[in-house]
Amino acid sequence: MPVESPLTIPLSLLIIFGVAKLMAEIFERLRLPGIVGEIVAGVLVGPQVLHWLEPNTILSAFSDLGLIFLLFRVGLEVRPSSFRRAGKLASLVAVCGVILPFLTGAGIMLLWRASFVESCFIGVAMVATSVGITAKALAEQGALHMPAAQVILAAAVYDDILGLLALALVTSFARGAVRPFELLFTAVVAIGFTMLTLHWGTPVMQRILRHLSPRLRISETEFALAMVVLFALSVLAVFAGVAPIVGAFLAGMAMSESVERRVHDMTGGVTEVFLPFFLAGIGMRLDLAIFRDTSTLLLASLIIAGAIVSKLAGCGLGALSMGRTDALRVGVGMIPRGEVGMVVAQIGAAMGVIPHNLYGIVVAMSVVTTLAAPPLLRAVFPRKHPD
Amino acid sequence: MPVESPLTIPLSLLIIFGVAKLMAEIFERLRLPGIVGEIVAGVLVGPQVLHWLEPNTILSAFSDLGLIFLLFRVGLEVRPSSFRRAGKLASLVAVCGVILPFLTGAGIMLLWRASFVESCFIGVAMVATSVGITAKALAEQGALHMPAAQVILAAAVYDDILGLLALALVTSFARGAVRPFELLFTAVVAIGFTMLTLHWGTPVMQRILRHLSPRLRISETEFALAMVVLFALSVLAVFAGVAPIVGAFLAGMAMSESVERRVHDMTGGVTEVFLPFFLAGIGMRLDLAIFRDTSTLLLASLIIAGAIVSKLAGCGLGALSMGRTDALRVGVGMIPRGEVGMVVAQIGAAMGVIPHNLYGIVVAMSVVTTLAAPPLLRAVFPRKHPD
Repeated sequence: MPVESPLTIPLSLLIIFGVAKLMAEIFERLRLPGIVGEIVAGVLVGPQVLHWLEPNTILSAFSDLGLIFLLFRVGLEVRPSSFRRAGKLASLVAVCGVILPFLTGAGIMLLWRASFVESCFIGVAMVATSVGITAKALAEQGALHMPAAQVILAAAVYDDILGLLALALVTSFARGAVRPFELLFTAVVAIGFTMLTLHWGTPVMQRILRHLSPRLRISETEFALAMVVLFALSVLAVFAGVAPIVGAFLAGMAMSESVERRVHDMTGGVTEVFLPFFLAGIGMRLDLAIFRDTSTLLLASLIIAGAIVSKLAGCGLGALSMGRTDALRVGVGMIPRGEVGMVVAQIGAAMGVIPHNLYGIVVAMSVVTTLAAPPLLRAVFPRKHPD
Repeated sequence: MPVESPLTIPLSLLIIFGVAKLMAEIFERLRLPGIVGEIVAGVLVGPQVLHWLEPNTILSAFSDLGLIFLLFRVGLEVRPSSFRRAGKLASLVAVCGVILPFLTGAGIMLLWRASFVESCFIGVAMVATSVGITAKALAEQGALHMPAAQVILAAAVYDDILGLLALALVTSFARGAVRPFELLFTAVVAIGFTMLTLHWGTPVMQRILRHLSPRLRISETEFALAMVVLFALSVLAVFAGVAPIVGAFLAGMAMSESVERRVHDMTGGVTEVFLPFFLAGIGMRLDLAIFRDTSTLLLASLIIAGAIVSKLAGCGLGALSMGRTDALRVGVGMIPRGEVGMVVAQIGAAMGVIPHNLYGIVVAMSVVTTLAAPPLLRAVFPRKHPD
């Protein structure tokens, strides 16, 4: 028989998409956020409960796709001018929102008598905000254009750069040699890429679309061009050292003033199909078994509480000049940690610095902070138009 | 480091999509079909020329997705009433278009002094039409609504059922035991599934969409419902023994009279992003090295010529009652063999009945018949509206 069954793809689509939408509907009826329902769907169909699916290459590819297209769509809604206006404040938010969680995480671990390297790894795993959940929740609330939302999106980009540098620092430290020039180079490339795209992206894209679109003969020209730019910037982002979703977001923003409605709808289709794979994927990775051990459970509770409070306080502090209400909104919006924290823990595990139960705790921290954000965001952001 | 690099997904998307669209543009400018350009793009970036990518799980998952969504989109354009009208004639076309290629393939192999089982396998591998290419080419020509196009689409569904039965017959024969009841059961289930969906799909879907859509609270309700039906029918199709794309096509047709324009555009986005993976994937699998051996080259030429002529003659003969022009159109539309033939060869190889060079010949036959179809279709179908 062929290596891959013809059932693999349609069955994965049916299970993840179908159960995610079913749970979203149930959660909405219970007046809870639909995206939380989709994460819970992952817990249900995953290895914890029903064993229908477990994390695999295809599911994580679909999840990556969903995330790339989500951030592209969010970028399409953001005007570079208002993003730049949020820039200075956002960098302050990002810096405070990186330092405090790192110190909290590393501090808890040191008090728990973990080694210095181990403590640093957990600290770094608590640093990176996963903006996907917040972006989706804000889009559903119709709140993407509010000042606090703009600061969150901009801060998430800086946050990603800072998280990357922290990871580079701690891994080189764990290897026993810190190379300051390498770190500086990484920082310059990442920041340079972001700044260049931010400042030159829009005029360049307007020119490209206006001049190239009518000259090409392939069908769906504008969509094809938009996709090539999206994929190219996602790849460049990785080469510049940041996450592909940063490139996707910047690509969207660069095109926010040039592409027509049809491109929005077509990319919307891709996002709708694949986003459930990202959301359910988070739930699917949760390993409840590690919490049978009370000491692990206690440490996990501390880490999770620390992750929530430190990000809320750090980012809120950074945004205090916006007034208390908006500072709270920004703080809440930055709470979710996602795949980035898990990647840090994975690297630590691969280097032999992070034991299995600590990896489980980082995953639990990611899942819980992600689950906590949408209801909190609903509470602090006004709902502009119901859907 | 994590098992999967963050570069994998964006880089695959950039290479396949970017090069496919570039080649499509070049081919269109040379007045050649764009889809042929996208297949050639696969040859270029694949292991034959540039070595940028080679067939892997993720690429084939994206290819499956593209095919499922393509057939769904084609289904959306077809009204069940006109499809049913084409039914009787289409079944005649399918039967003639299965018998003649099987006899031709098996005959060539027997004359080549291959074993009986080997000859049967190659015969079966030459049976199944890959309707994806034809559907895409007809859609680009704006010719999906012509009578010949309707006959091709309907015949491709029957063809898939017949191909499945032929495969079941030849594998049970190779295993040394033909079980007539099992074969009969498979036939009844496959035909039953198709007939039920064909006759009851439209009214059921109209009722579901009309009653359920306004009652659900999740966003993009109609799109979500359409996707669940699409994925469910694709899964059911596999359980019924046919290819998932048959289910996808039937799902599209069942909804062709009920869903709104927006769902067309959103599914169009998914199709546009992933179809290049299917097209380039065909090119990527071509192994030019086996043709260094002149005897293999001769056999391949015979098989390819036999595949084209036998399908053209068989299907054309079956459609002769439509007049010569339409019979020619139907015959040309049924020429492309795709993934199905490769799957047959793969099964044969896994059973130890098909040697490596014969597998390469089957792949070459699929690629060449697929490359040949779009220019031929352009020649025999009138172009309704240029794009």
